[in-house]
Amino acid sequence: MSELKNEFGKVPAPVGRVWFVGAGPGAADLITLRGWEALGKADVVIADELAGPEVLRHRRPGAVVVPVGKRAGCHSASQAEINRLIVEHALAGSRVVRLKGGDPSVFGRLAEEMEALRVAGVPFEVVPGITAACAAAAAMQVPLTARPETPAALLVTGHECAGKDALVDWAQLARTPATICLYMGSRRLASIGAQLQAGGRAADTPLLVVSNVSLPHQSVLSGTLEEAALLEQNLPAGPAIIFVGPVAASNPALFAASAAALSHVA
Amino acid sequence: MSELKNEFGKVPAPVGRVWFVGAGPGAADLITLRGWEALGKADVVIADELAGPEVLRHRRPGAVVVPVGKRAGCHSASQAEINRLIVEHALAGSRVVRLKGGDPSVFGRLAEEMEALRVAGVPFEVVPGITAACAAAAAMQVPLTARPETPAALLVTGHECAGKDALVDWAQLARTPATICLYMGSRRLASIGAQLQAGGRAADTPLLVVSNVSLPHQSVLSGTLEEAALLEQNLPAGPAIIFVGPVAASNPALFAASAAALSHVA
Repeated sequence: MSELKNEFGKVPAPVGRVWFVGAGPGAADLITLRGWEALGKADVVIADELAGPEVLRHRRPGAVVVPVGKRAGCHSASQAEINRLIVEHALAGSRVVRLKGGDPSVFGRLAEEMEALRVAGVPFEVVPGITAACAAAAAMQVPLTARPETPAALLVTGHECAGKDALVDWAQLARTPATICLYMGSRRLASIGAQLQAGGRAADTPLLVVSNVSLPHQSVLSGTLEEAALLEQNLPAGPAIIFVGPVAASNPALFAASAAALSHVA
Repeated sequence: MSELKNEFGKVPAPVGRVWFVGAGPGAADLITLRGWEALGKADVVIADELAGPEVLRHRRPGAVVVPVGKRAGCHSASQAEINRLIVEHALAGSRVVRLKGGDPSVFGRLAEEMEALRVAGVPFEVVPGITAACAAAAAMQVPLTARPETPAALLVTGHECAGKDALVDWAQLARTPATICLYMGSRRLASIGAQLQAGGRAADTPLLVVSNVSLPHQSVLSGTLEEAALLEQNLPAGPAIIFVGPVAASNPALFAASAAALSHVA
């Protein structure tokens, strides 16, 4: 018996597994089947604010939900804390879902969290999700690319950490033929619009701003680059995706209706 | 009775509805719940080759499947034919799913097909899907963006129609801080690699080529920009997504293993 006890003593601590799951834009049915299945089996769900309550309903009854802060935060201590939480729950033997808004690979701080798991020796998988640009394009019935003028789409962050050098040279981006899909740019829309114009982008380039995409309070504003400041002032609360380029005006009914709404607000 | 007959005669022809559904990269469980539900209710499924047989298994028993050609084809007659098929089935009163590989808004010829439906007065919805860049990043456990060096991801087509001017100025793109995610570029990898280097991109910039992502025969090759021609020669058949930029080398185990495999092939 003592030998058996010793054998038990030698069994290594259980190591769980982590699934990074893209929740998509927020609607409960815009998660993948694979993500839905992972959520339904998880012991612990470490969830971004942006992942939202709708998607969380898919979790296994009894699963522990650990809400963590905004994914866009510049607060490095907070990111370290998230890394620590994921590793600790996995090393305790849990099946952990790290639920992220949109797609984990796009502006999701995935690199830092994967690195923490690699260092800790925790196995993980990444389940992709619908990124906000794709979700907003679908909801607005506009394409992100179109032949022949728009052979590309640029997913770019408008968020810059205070005290750091600008990461994106907006003036240099002004002449891109890509649809600019601006994430986390709500509070910098006026500034970015001005920089794009300074770089040579036409003042009448169409803009489309989709807030809270796929949720009941989804809303849209449209205008042109020279109206960027006006649009910024009228943005509702919540995450928004901003399209800059010809496709932003390619759903005529939408563009007309939204422009009228903006005129009314202005 | 004759009056009733006349009343029936006045009833307009039934008009169906179209759901553009993003199938994702091909694995059956990488479609969204919303797309899965639409497929399960469709009378007719007009399916791209790239949407694949795995996802088609979700269709309603008895649904008619109409396979159509590659979505990347330059054949405009074929696109006109696809438009006609969608409109005809919808005007006959069917619930039509137009199933597209990846996300409908990204290189999916969505603009043309939506326009055909708008002209015909057929209502439609767009259900987003996992685009190949997100799927490949998840499968490879690399992010598409990373702080602070990579604040953007560029989804761009390597496909150019014969006899048309180049749509993308690759030399000009050489200095982008974005991860270049090249769609439909397998047969132009050597040429694009050379143009990026001519534009000033370092010869040792990492490349990652993921073929048949999410399918049983998924494969990966990695190397550097100066090895682009060698990589092109060794590409397996099937659709591929090509990443250019630092994140392509951010999964060290993968990059080492794949480089060794390529050395073996070369």
